[in-house]
Amino acid sequence: MALRIGVDLGGTNLRVALVRENGTIVRESEQLTEAEKGPDSVITKMMDMVRGIKGEDIIKGVGVGSPGPLDPFTGTIHQPPNLPGWDSIPLARILEESLGEHVEIDNDANAAALAEAKFGAGAGAQSVYYITVSTGVGGGFVIGGEIFQGATGYAAEIGNMIILPSGPTHNSLNAGALESLASGTAIGLAGQKAGIAGGAEEVFRLAMVHDPIAQSIIDEALNYLAIGIANLAHAVNPSIFVMGGGVMKSESQVLDPLRGKVKTYVYPGLKHTIKIVPASLGSKAGVVGAAFLIK
Amino acid sequence: MALRIGVDLGGTNLRVALVRENGTIVRESEQLTEAEKGPDSVITKMMDMVRGIKGEDIIKGVGVGSPGPLDPFTGTIHQPPNLPGWDSIPLARILEESLGEHVEIDNDANAAALAEAKFGAGAGAQSVYYITVSTGVGGGFVIGGEIFQGATGYAAEIGNMIILPSGPTHNSLNAGALESLASGTAIGLAGQKAGIAGGAEEVFRLAMVHDPIAQSIIDEALNYLAIGIANLAHAVNPSIFVMGGGVMKSESQVLDPLRGKVKTYVYPGLKHTIKIVPASLGSKAGVVGAAFLIK
Repeated sequence: MALRIGVDLGGTNLRVALVRENGTIVRESEQLTEAEKGPDSVITKMMDMVRGIKGEDIIKGVGVGSPGPLDPFTGTIHQPPNLPGWDSIPLARILEESLGEHVEIDNDANAAALAEAKFGAGAGAQSVYYITVSTGVGGGFVIGGEIFQGATGYAAEIGNMIILPSGPTHNSLNAGALESLASGTAIGLAGQKAGIAGGAEEVFRLAMVHDPIAQSIIDEALNYLAIGIANLAHAVNPSIFVMGGGVMKSESQVLDPLRGKVKTYVYPGLKHTIKIVPASLGSKAGVVGAAFLIK
Repeated sequence: MALRIGVDLGGTNLRVALVRENGTIVRESEQLTEAEKGPDSVITKMMDMVRGIKGEDIIKGVGVGSPGPLDPFTGTIHQPPNLPGWDSIPLARILEESLGEHVEIDNDANAAALAEAKFGAGAGAQSVYYITVSTGVGGGFVIGGEIFQGATGYAAEIGNMIILPSGPTHNSLNAGALESLASGTAIGLAGQKAGIAGGAEEVFRLAMVHDPIAQSIIDEALNYLAIGIANLAHAVNPSIFVMGGGVMKSESQVLDPLRGKVKTYVYPGLKHTIKIVPASLGSKAGVVGAAFLIK
């Protein structure tokens, strides 16, 4: 059975796995990224980990899921906010020259989307729109088992979709962008304004014990997320939406109310057919999906 | 060269053409639909026109572009607002039984999108998002020369995408849906509220002679349309947006300002690569695209 290596390059953790054709992991390793040491250090560590995990096995190639922005066509990483010092690093070329293997690179949300579409909650669906809600909001659109990149790699950059014109701004995103309304960061900030310290986690905890202010913050964020999902349903009508990321953990507190709200925003014919399910691969999605960036 | 027949079933006009593999028309005919006479009359007229246009030629099949809502998978037409008396008519089956030809049906915007993608302004592009702005707002998403239907045929139902939560409502659409903000109808209604009679056409005429109120109505509608386009760019990043429909006629009055506004709403990396062009096939798009519903 053909083997591939997946690399999940995160701002905090660096994970490498040898993955079988059926999505299962042969062996894996994880280390701290130590991103503050800069790209040379991180890349050297990554190559050492890849060599260690590969051993004597023959592989089809190495796929890397990385924070964006990046160019998946050339394999160049631009300036990810959580990889300080990286500035247009041609990571694919560097790795190919050093490892002698075929290398593909894509953003972490696309890699996770691919894994969920092939082996996780979206397995068997013709088209999967994966949405991850944690610190930020990201996504990946997979059609027929392949990532739909769009013309220049911007497909599923859904954090920047405008949901509330003249809404709040967040980083360099559009005013009223989805990420500025529905991310964990946005929920934490709304909590802070209402006197709740401790970020999104504390807002969710308070809502669980029926704090009305915390609940209304969550309701509002989920409402904007529902609008985003409804808009995607009317734009591309995917077979299934797969929801990942820390904010999506709770079925009863998040997914059920989200489904209810989405149904109020779609055509009658979509109300009973739209599918919104939680991601099922957890933290493995990144490294498994990265491995399948190699076709 | 293989031949197909395309039927453009409109609320006002019924058009049938024999179309070559390269998208050119061998012969065509057009009659008034006389939709008020009901489905039996319209379908009989359609079959007579198809038989007349076919003559002794061998064809691959008959494609019909129709107003929605409809089910492209079963070829059933539901209750289009401008085809009174039609209620779940299995048009594909009726035509197949009577004509003895393979029949495919899709909505008129998808048919026009397919024609523009194969032979018009989007020819050669890997993916085309066609947007039509006239009485309503519709669309069609074509990938690799094929209509992307989505799981249940709702892809590109962009008129119902929410752009301004708590915005105005229009028919049975979402509050603040794109169609309620940027269609010709919406522009006409905004004009009416400002004391301009004569619909969207008069608003555009007055703006041409520097009426500031008319100009602000158009600016606002184009701003919402630009948000919709930017959201689609961040959702699927098509190779090209092709703009059709009566409202999109003027390059200087509509398309140029629209392009400028879209650029303010997309990631820097998209500003210089996003392509927004006018449709090029005019009223032929519907009938030619319909013919290519037959694969």
